[in-house]
Amino acid sequence: MNQLYSSKLLENVVSEFSKLPGIGKKTAMRMALHILRQDEESVKQFGQAVIRLRSEVMYCKHCHNLSDTELCEICSSPRRDHSIVCVVETVRDVMSIENTMQYQGVYHVLGGVISPMDGIGPADLTIDSLERKIASGTVSEIILALSATMEGDTTNFYIYRKVKHHAVTVTTLARGLSVGDELEYADQVTLGRSLINRMPFEDTFKK
Amino acid sequence: MNQLYSSKLLENVVSEFSKLPGIGKKTAMRMALHILRQDEESVKQFGQAVIRLRSEVMYCKHCHNLSDTELCEICSSPRRDHSIVCVVETVRDVMSIENTMQYQGVYHVLGGVISPMDGIGPADLTIDSLERKIASGTVSEIILALSATMEGDTTNFYIYRKVKHHAVTVTTLARGLSVGDELEYADQVTLGRSLINRMPFEDTFKK
Repeated sequence: MNQLYSSKLLENVVSEFSKLPGIGKKTAMRMALHILRQDEESVKQFGQAVIRLRSEVMYCKHCHNLSDTELCEICSSPRRDHSIVCVVETVRDVMSIENTMQYQGVYHVLGGVISPMDGIGPADLTIDSLERKIASGTVSEIILALSATMEGDTTNFYIYRKVKHHAVTVTTLARGLSVGDELEYADQVTLGRSLINRMPFEDTFKK
Repeated sequence: MNQLYSSKLLENVVSEFSKLPGIGKKTAMRMALHILRQDEESVKQFGQAVIRLRSEVMYCKHCHNLSDTELCEICSSPRRDHSIVCVVETVRDVMSIENTMQYQGVYHVLGGVISPMDGIGPADLTIDSLERKIASGTVSEIILALSATMEGDTTNFYIYRKVKHHAVTVTTLARGLSVGDELEYADQVTLGRSLINRMPFEDTFKK
């Protein structure tokens, strides 16, 4: 049944909020009433921040990461190693890797993975731009850091075939047991691969 | 650990979204990335709807319900029975009751209930305005439709004492088993009251 609103303005906001992912009518209503309890200045800031994000944010012309400037902070930093490029699906993955504080190279955001089921082909991603970057000869290693799914593997392989004739090392994220995993509950494929790709014990405390 | 953002604009929106009730950093991030996938016009509409709600919405001068006009739709409707006033806590309760389609009277929104623990006294609510409305002599019945909590009961009693010397009938919502309640799981107080206030069986299929 449709909710009856006494205010068209309220109805609009509830309908706008409920377009957000994971937000239903009830939560949207709670948010709208929360907005009404804030002072006018804060609400203005809220609304304008959202509008500005969409209208002003750019994608770094080099790595396609979200950025406020033409070239993102990472690509323009002299402290990063520009010869190592970590290939990721989304801007979110950049943040995840940055949060590990373990990586000093630069990134390349593909914008997704090849997924025929969702109608996403290589041309929808920034693979061409990655290939040009590698062809320019400034890159010594690319790290494929895509999801460990079939689509991720397909995309990995596609990129590998595109770049293997260039003088570039292609690596991928280590696969194996996650920290804290119990053997009993690990899936067979993960466990099987972990066995095959077993590593010298000394290596585990080197890093 | 603090998330590292490549864009200040993005960081602002995530921080704004995470001020909303029940929204953490991760959900806020998901929302911000969702915003980025929408076209600019829709995002503008979203932002402006929120800003306009806060700056333009009014409270009906008669019933204190949310309204786009000085007098809300319900108070200005000739099809409603203006001699019956349903007293509720919030604008949300008005909507709940409107949704039942069972009520043809008008409302009076208190803006809360008396709750000394939260520092809310009678003066913070619209009780004075309710009293004036009743003193004007146009109201024949007020229906106390507050929460069945201690604060609700206190407020009910306070209002009752304020208006009992006027020629007005004071009623309250029926209390008893909810539709679908199993006797086994009903709480003792509800069950006890339902026994004391038992009603003629014929009345159950009259309404």
